[in-house]
Amino acid sequence: VTRQIAAAMEAALGPDMVSIEPTVLAAHSLDWQTDPQDAVLPIALVRPRTADDVAATVRLCREHGCAITVQGGLTGLAGGAVPSSNAVALSLDRMNAIEDVDPVGATISVQAGATLQQVQESAKSHGMLFPLDLGARGTCRIGGNIGTNAGGNHVLRYGMMRDLVLGLEAVLADGTVVTAMNRTLKNNAGYDLKHLFIGSEGTLGIITRAVLRLYDLPQAEHNALCALPNYDAVGRMLRLARRELGTTLNAFELMWPRYYEFASHMRGFQPFREPGSYYLLLEASGSARDAETFQAVMEQAIEGGLVTDGFIAQSLSEAASFWQLRDASGELRSHFWPNANFDISINTSQIGRFVEVLEKKIVERWPDAEVAVFGHVADGNVHIAVKTLQEPFPATEIEQSVYALVGKFNGSISAEHGIGLAKKIYLHHSRSPGELEMMRRLKAALDPAGVLNPGKVF
Amino acid sequence: VTRQIAAAMEAALGPDMVSIEPTVLAAHSLDWQTDPQDAVLPIALVRPRTADDVAATVRLCREHGCAITVQGGLTGLAGGAVPSSNAVALSLDRMNAIEDVDPVGATISVQAGATLQQVQESAKSHGMLFPLDLGARGTCRIGGNIGTNAGGNHVLRYGMMRDLVLGLEAVLADGTVVTAMNRTLKNNAGYDLKHLFIGSEGTLGIITRAVLRLYDLPQAEHNALCALPNYDAVGRMLRLARRELGTTLNAFELMWPRYYEFASHMRGFQPFREPGSYYLLLEASGSARDAETFQAVMEQAIEGGLVTDGFIAQSLSEAASFWQLRDASGELRSHFWPNANFDISINTSQIGRFVEVLEKKIVERWPDAEVAVFGHVADGNVHIAVKTLQEPFPATEIEQSVYALVGKFNGSISAEHGIGLAKKIYLHHSRSPGELEMMRRLKAALDPAGVLNPGKVF
Repeated sequence: VTRQIAAAMEAALGPDMVSIEPTVLAAHSLDWQTDPQDAVLPIALVRPRTADDVAATVRLCREHGCAITVQGGLTGLAGGAVPSSNAVALSLDRMNAIEDVDPVGATISVQAGATLQQVQESAKSHGMLFPLDLGARGTCRIGGNIGTNAGGNHVLRYGMMRDLVLGLEAVLADGTVVTAMNRTLKNNAGYDLKHLFIGSEGTLGIITRAVLRLYDLPQAEHNALCALPNYDAVGRMLRLARRELGTTLNAFELMWPRYYEFASHMRGFQPFREPGSYYLLLEASGSARDAETFQAVMEQAIEGGLVTDGFIAQSLSEAASFWQLRDASGELRSHFWPNANFDISINTSQIGRFVEVLEKKIVERWPDAEVAVFGHVADGNVHIAVKTLQEPFPATEIEQSVYALVGKFNGSISAEHGIGLAKKIYLHHSRSPGELEMMRRLKAALDPAGVLNPGKVF
Repeated sequence: VTRQIAAAMEAALGPDMVSIEPTVLAAHSLDWQTDPQDAVLPIALVRPRTADDVAATVRLCREHGCAITVQGGLTGLAGGAVPSSNAVALSLDRMNAIEDVDPVGATISVQAGATLQQVQESAKSHGMLFPLDLGARGTCRIGGNIGTNAGGNHVLRYGMMRDLVLGLEAVLADGTVVTAMNRTLKNNAGYDLKHLFIGSEGTLGIITRAVLRLYDLPQAEHNALCALPNYDAVGRMLRLARRELGTTLNAFELMWPRYYEFASHMRGFQPFREPGSYYLLLEASGSARDAETFQAVMEQAIEGGLVTDGFIAQSLSEAASFWQLRDASGELRSHFWPNANFDISINTSQIGRFVEVLEKKIVERWPDAEVAVFGHVADGNVHIAVKTLQEPFPATEIEQSVYALVGKFNGSISAEHGIGLAKKIYLHHSRSPGELEMMRRLKAALDPAGVLNPGKVF
């Protein structure tokens, strides 16, 4: 049957568009996060060149009763791009053109397969900034960033991916191409359809193009790395930074000791002589004039006892070395293993307490366990990795334990990574029955046959 | 029949909840913008106290085969709150509680009937800012601001209403109450349902509560009023302001001469000795330290010939007198009459040219016509009023003329006021057939019987 479908697709789409090569299919059977034993081989891999190719593929899948899972850079952390069962994998890697950059209107129009880094670099070459940024920038693709509503390091100032999309084009489950390439900041002409596709993980439509919002490139960046004595100081530091740096505040990334130790070991960079209770990476960007204000904030923080030790980056390379510590999170997968990891959202003022309670709970249950925590605390969002050498690895029990505590703190079980496969059984911790029912109703209305990435989200 | 429905509602909801008093119905038959001859009397007015009352009303309307039009402050400018035919009007004026203000988490939870001003003042009393602001602040209600995705004076910095809503509660067409009162900045747990209700003008659900985003109250505000020689100077001034003021730039409101003349006459305030070609109201807010930067921007603008004359407000009352000129737009309705007015979006760099072409076209056709233009040009959004004493007033011809030109410039026919009744026949100028079809499909999925504000938007 599989061969028949692949042959039908090849006949319709062209010879170099479809692959059933086992090694190729294996490479598209899982993402960075997926345990190899949970990999799902797709029936075939399709690599379209145009939105019409995508539409034709969707129609063929529907005719043959198989599903379709769209894939970007496969860097997702919730399994959203792992093929559904009996699915064709659709990779947009060939649709990676930067179509237009408009520095005056402050927009960039791109195909969904462009990598995040391509978009950042195109914007920069026109003196503009595309502010979304995350560790996988060189591999992840814009369509995936939109489909999962990616977050990252600069949400505090510029918002999530959702806030950076002005318009898009998507292919629906019936093969209709919906073109909504709005370029204006304000357009209240009817329903704002793009938000249905953003963050719905390929279950309502396949995003093929987008118009993204650009910002003026800041003239200077100011970075500091500091050690803080307690969580109360973290809260007071955030209020000080917000008040004095205002909207030039770009990043407020907190690292707990176990994570900091891991990262400084991985990168061979340990600037502090005395250990701190928390480590903070602070970034502001604006004009060169702001350097004085930034310096003043740091001095005030040290005088007030909020910061016990700290460094202001004196060069771009020094700033880069600070950020290396934060970017080492990508290596938790390979060097802090086996772990169960989490992307949760809690009211900022309660995160310190939440982590304390969690660590205690985990270590009581698994005495060898280690908990590495870091994240965007100003957004209320932290990432947590729980490692234990317990065999077999108690993934489910750790998850239940963490999500129950998140529920108690009224948090979200997925701040920025999405639901995908990995978290769907926990979705009810963060969404009401009315919300879940409405999600199902929308899915049924837009994809009655269940062609688009079935089994994901709910 | 009407009496029967009203009696059934009174029986179900309680005696002081339903009114069929002719003067009451007349007051709920039109909004600020509606020509009295287009007023539509509702069958009855219902004034619920709870979301359950709203749900019961929706179910009763469905049973009796009548429609329901939700009303806020009736200050809308597109007729969205004018009752549909055979409709009950639902006013949320009794559901106006401020439920909770959380300065640390930076959120405010409110019922949908609270006025914008109530919300602004509650936030301020906790040292926080709710940044949405528009002329009707004392009358318009939050539910209406959300239902129409209101814009206003500070979109440049804080975004539209859509960007300020974290969570909401809505009653669907079948009477289900969907509670999605998310309070976190980041929540990627499934589809983001709130965006379907925001800006859909009461056609997909009735918003009953919301969690809104607050900001730290800026420590100081800096305002300037200046005259500029040409539109090229406007563009250069915007780039200068963006570069130097960064995200402290709050408002960049441009007034064309005819509007400025009207406003300064209405308010008896004419600060400039020499007329300018454009008048600009510039606002930045942040710390007191920013005063120097603001001054430097103005000096640079004068030296560079971008500004021919200008004033920096030396006090709050002087700043208020500058803003009076902008707020006089509310009086166009009564003192620049009869007119046809527009709320359009065009790429910022082309607005100057667009207005020139438009004025020429209008005056050629109606030699007595006057065109008053003002707006948020940094957002690409201007408001236009075309006045002529021609009888009968050629409303439709003026509209066709303006919207055709907007289409030519690839703009939006409704930047911030919505579609309602007034613009639905022009919606195709700004939305593709695929978009219109998808809007209809969503409406059919969520409101198959067409109970909620039928006949609006499309």
